[in-house]
Amino acid sequence: MSSKAAVYRGDKTFTIETVETPPPGPGQVQIDVAYCGICGTDLHIYLGHMDARVGFERTIGHEMSGRIAALGEGVEGLAPGQPIVVRPLDHCGDCPACRAGHEHICHNLTFIGIDNDGAFQQRWNVPAHTIHVLPDGLDLSHAALIEPLAVACHDVSRAAVQPGEDVLVIGGGPIGMLVAMVAREAVAKVTVTEINENRLAFAKGLGFETLNPKDGDVAEAVHAATGGKGADVIFEVSGSQQGVDLMTAAAATRGRICMVAIHATKPTVDMFQFFWRELDLLGARVYRPEDYDTAMGLLAKGVVDCEAFITDIQGIDQIQSAFETLTQNPNAMKSMIRMTEDA
Amino acid sequence: MSSKAAVYRGDKTFTIETVETPPPGPGQVQIDVAYCGICGTDLHIYLGHMDARVGFERTIGHEMSGRIAALGEGVEGLAPGQPIVVRPLDHCGDCPACRAGHEHICHNLTFIGIDNDGAFQQRWNVPAHTIHVLPDGLDLSHAALIEPLAVACHDVSRAAVQPGEDVLVIGGGPIGMLVAMVAREAVAKVTVTEINENRLAFAKGLGFETLNPKDGDVAEAVHAATGGKGADVIFEVSGSQQGVDLMTAAAATRGRICMVAIHATKPTVDMFQFFWRELDLLGARVYRPEDYDTAMGLLAKGVVDCEAFITDIQGIDQIQSAFETLTQNPNAMKSMIRMTEDA
Ligand SMILES: [Zn+2]
Ligand SMILES: [Zn+2]
Ligand SMILES: [Zn+2]
Ligand SMILES: [Zn+2]
Repeated sequence: MSSKAAVYRGDKTFTIETVETPPPGPGQVQIDVAYCGICGTDLHIYLGHMDARVGFERTIGHEMSGRIAALGEGVEGLAPGQPIVVRPLDHCGDCPACRAGHEHICHNLTFIGIDNDGAFQQRWNVPAHTIHVLPDGLDLSHAALIEPLAVACHDVSRAAVQPGEDVLVIGGGPIGMLVAMVAREAVAKVTVTEINENRLAFAKGLGFETLNPKDGDVAEAVHAATGGKGADVIFEVSGSQQGVDLMTAAAATRGRICMVAIHATKPTVDMFQFFWRELDLLGARVYRPEDYDTAMGLLAKGVVDCEAFITDIQGIDQIQSAFETLTQNPNAMKSMIRMTEDA
Repeated sequence: MSSKAAVYRGDKTFTIETVETPPPGPGQVQIDVAYCGICGTDLHIYLGHMDARVGFERTIGHEMSGRIAALGEGVEGLAPGQPIVVRPLDHCGDCPACRAGHEHICHNLTFIGIDNDGAFQQRWNVPAHTIHVLPDGLDLSHAALIEPLAVACHDVSRAAVQPGEDVLVIGGGPIGMLVAMVAREAVAKVTVTEINENRLAFAKGLGFETLNPKDGDVAEAVHAATGGKGADVIFEVSGSQQGVDLMTAAAATRGRICMVAIHATKPTVDMFQFFWRELDLLGARVYRPEDYDTAMGLLAKGVVDCEAFITDIQGIDQIQSAFETLTQNPNAMKSMIRMTEDA
């Protein structure tokens, strides 16, 4: 049966192709993709930063929701029609990370939708172990937020945020805002710092304390607001040298700093503060299966204001303009593509 | 009763003074100091790096052993003649760190022997809460190693070293070597990396695996020796940019890096590796009371070859030449001062 797929061709260009998706192989599940959000990584691919890794005939996309269309040989416990999301990680099972139980950061990890074809296609075959069945009644456009929400759940879990703790989120983009929401749900007192006034207004609208570095020293403000203690937990989501400077300056003694951002260049780090205040820096990447379960639960509970968070939804035929628009809108939270003609 | 005290006068100079030590005040204990080792921090003070903090009439020294001479008013549970060591930390009890149970890194910490007078004097009054009574039969020159050994115990405890883990110690000075010994006692497989061949030979003589960066890439060697896994735990004791580069390069996925060294300048850090491999960086400073208990137990058990570790012992009248000699000997482990005429 033919269906549509968006294919990245390099040079900021997607083409829409009509493809014949093969039936699901043994151990695979075929998905009718409903929605797929545009991730920051997808933008990097679109801008050509990852051409060496993805090539020029890749269907990308991984922040998706959909329904099961068909089951491959040997797949049990699932049924056509079930609403699902895919956890887009495939691990080798045999490297030191897998053997130690860290399959989500397998040394030979295949990120589905980057290293092989992803969800910007109407029919998609994936390994059965990547499927999470959704609870009933979840809007599928909202469910496409589960992947980035699972990232936030993993970050908050890695930092072991406790009730009553003072949390500082450095960077108020989509992941930073989701981290803030999940941390608040863990009964922490959350402040978001960000230089974009529109994003700050968005954070304020969701009820968060906010700090703009342009208005004064953020570390001083955090220490003043916490009786000289500092932030118990800090999420560095900015990927900037300023964020790295702030993370040590704002931390409480024995504070935990969760490194969420991708620092492509090596920042200078105030290592003395790690020693002096016995700080803890915890790297956090993607998610474990239980983070998906947590994310589905939080979404069903209404922890994310999905209507506010989804900036726009466009059809698959508009994917090119959706990416173009998004690169020109620093205020956007989540742009989403509706993959079916009839969703 | 008059006794001798060494006083730092600035300009790489100690004077030996005859002083009248007052009787111990309420809550204080008077110590007859037996031995006091020379710490790296003492060397920094001698070299003038800490003049602003210590001034020019300070008796320094904190790696000591001795016997109780007299008890001040209200001190209970101790008796004159008992062999003791002092944990040279006095905390405020009222700052955010103290209130959170991290008294050892109190925001207003007094390090006894730096911020006020220390153990390079024959009679020394200290707060009773700093006293640890030694088990019977411990040589007092050996017991003066308990303070640096407690640092190592704190580091290994912070990193939560587990039996069978691969441990890399970056920097084979006195603290690095003690960390290696404590980690080995935790049944870890310990490798020491260091550029000084004499220190490497010392480590080898104690039975450790060793790696010299001059002989090839240390991170590669660690990965090769661990089946591509890397070191589960890394102690950065070198204080160098090379050490910081190595700590991320040699780490296993989810590896824990314990920051023991004082980095006076901000190094560049491969922050991407923290994210990618979910590394954990743990700052560790001084010790908690239980680290002293552990250190005393390990010393009594013979975990440290004290005779090999103590490079030389000189009398208090030779303190000036002891410091001069030590600054010119990059191979020394622990130089010690005998504080009594008759010890
Ligand atoms: Zn993503
Ligand atoms: Zn693997
Ligand atoms: Zn010391
Ligand atoms: Zn305090």
